[in-house]
Amino acid sequence: MRIALCGGTGDLGEGLCLRWAKDTDYELLVGSRDPEKARDAVGRYEGTLDEHGVDAQLKGFANEMAADRADVVLACVPAYHLVDTIESIADRLDGSILVSPAVGMKREESGLQYNRPGAGSVTALAAGAAPDDVPVIGAFHSLAAGKLADLDAEIGTDTLVVGDDTEAKEQVRSLAEEISGLRTLDVGPIANAAAVESLTPLLINLAQYNDISDVGVQFE
Amino acid sequence: MRIALCGGTGDLGEGLCLRWAKDTDYELLVGSRDPEKARDAVGRYEGTLDEHGVDAQLKGFANEMAADRADVVLACVPAYHLVDTIESIADRLDGSILVSPAVGMKREESGLQYNRPGAGSVTALAAGAAPDDVPVIGAFHSLAAGKLADLDAEIGTDTLVVGDDTEAKEQVRSLAEEISGLRTLDVGPIANAAAVESLTPLLINLAQYNDISDVGVQFE
Repeated sequence: MRIALCGGTGDLGEGLCLRWAKDTDYELLVGSRDPEKARDAVGRYEGTLDEHGVDAQLKGFANEMAADRADVVLACVPAYHLVDTIESIADRLDGSILVSPAVGMKREESGLQYNRPGAGSVTALAAGAAPDDVPVIGAFHSLAAGKLADLDAEIGTDTLVVGDDTEAKEQVRSLAEEISGLRTLDVGPIANAAAVESLTPLLINLAQYNDISDVGVQFE
Repeated sequence: MRIALCGGTGDLGEGLCLRWAKDTDYELLVGSRDPEKARDAVGRYEGTLDEHGVDAQLKGFANEMAADRADVVLACVPAYHLVDTIESIADRLDGSILVSPAVGMKREESGLQYNRPGAGSVTALAAGAAPDDVPVIGAFHSLAAGKLADLDAEIGTDTLVVGDDTEAKEQVRSLAEEISGLRTLDVGPIANAAAVESLTPLLINLAQYNDISDVGVQFE
């Protein structure tokens, strides 16, 4: 199994890359618009993994090359770069699953608010930008990237997953649950994605108002 | 401390009434549009409490009378009855805090969706309907009423609280935390209420798609 983390030099990409490297044997491809930046990130991630006794083989590529080689492609970019990023890798996604963890937010006086796109959700936006035959799954939205990247921290959190392709969704859930302490819950089709994406600004506001960091969520 | 549960014959009213009766010495006033219905509910609740060895004094009233006598008034009614209910008790709210747990939802093919009112949130709608000098607090939205009402069940869940009046918000949080196993988290002013209210349809969809019941949420 090969996972590409396009935009994998950002916080969430780093966190997921380190966790999958630690907990699985998946081949991890870190992508960036600038392949040099991707290779630099790989060097840093390998250093962190080495400190934790993990001997992982990561690779850094331009986003297109990372996507081209992978079975599952994560677009770990901010919402406002999502469509551009997907369009730049669209012809490399044949046979792959595309995963969108992006959330649109705007800052208001009271805190962050979910910025719902016209498409209904950021996941729907991703699905609109991807080729028709590429299943798009929304997942990993509300994970505290800092906690993922801190390999000494125990994860005990849920991530909510939406998607219209049931088989692809199951595959992504199973990949996610390979990360120790991470549980996935199905929230149905992409039509339900807005509520899932809305959780992220809520968690950030919660953290701020209650002076706690790296807030996660567990449903029971 | 006297708490009025207007619309207290419904599921959430029952759950909160039973829990406060079990865990506190607060005087609980169950309100309904029909005082006879309120008294019937009180009889049922006292029966349940008696079975659990709790000797509680509950009282049933018309909503107006319940509100008139209480320090804190909960409007435990569906969102589409909220404004009517608040208007019917508005002149009885002097010196009280009004609490709104209501959420507007609509059913779509994929599941329940949050139905955001023009006011921005149901809590904002409640604040608009209440007299200007009555602090309005949003809380208790996402509690599984069935689990609250089952006094053998252990609650281990969070409830999110919003409100513009900091002192009133602290009072409601402290009332809520008297319920064993219930923790409150501050999410700031009413301007942040929509994200809080959106959690309820998300929890209901989660329960349906993952075949679990009485889903609660914990942030950590």
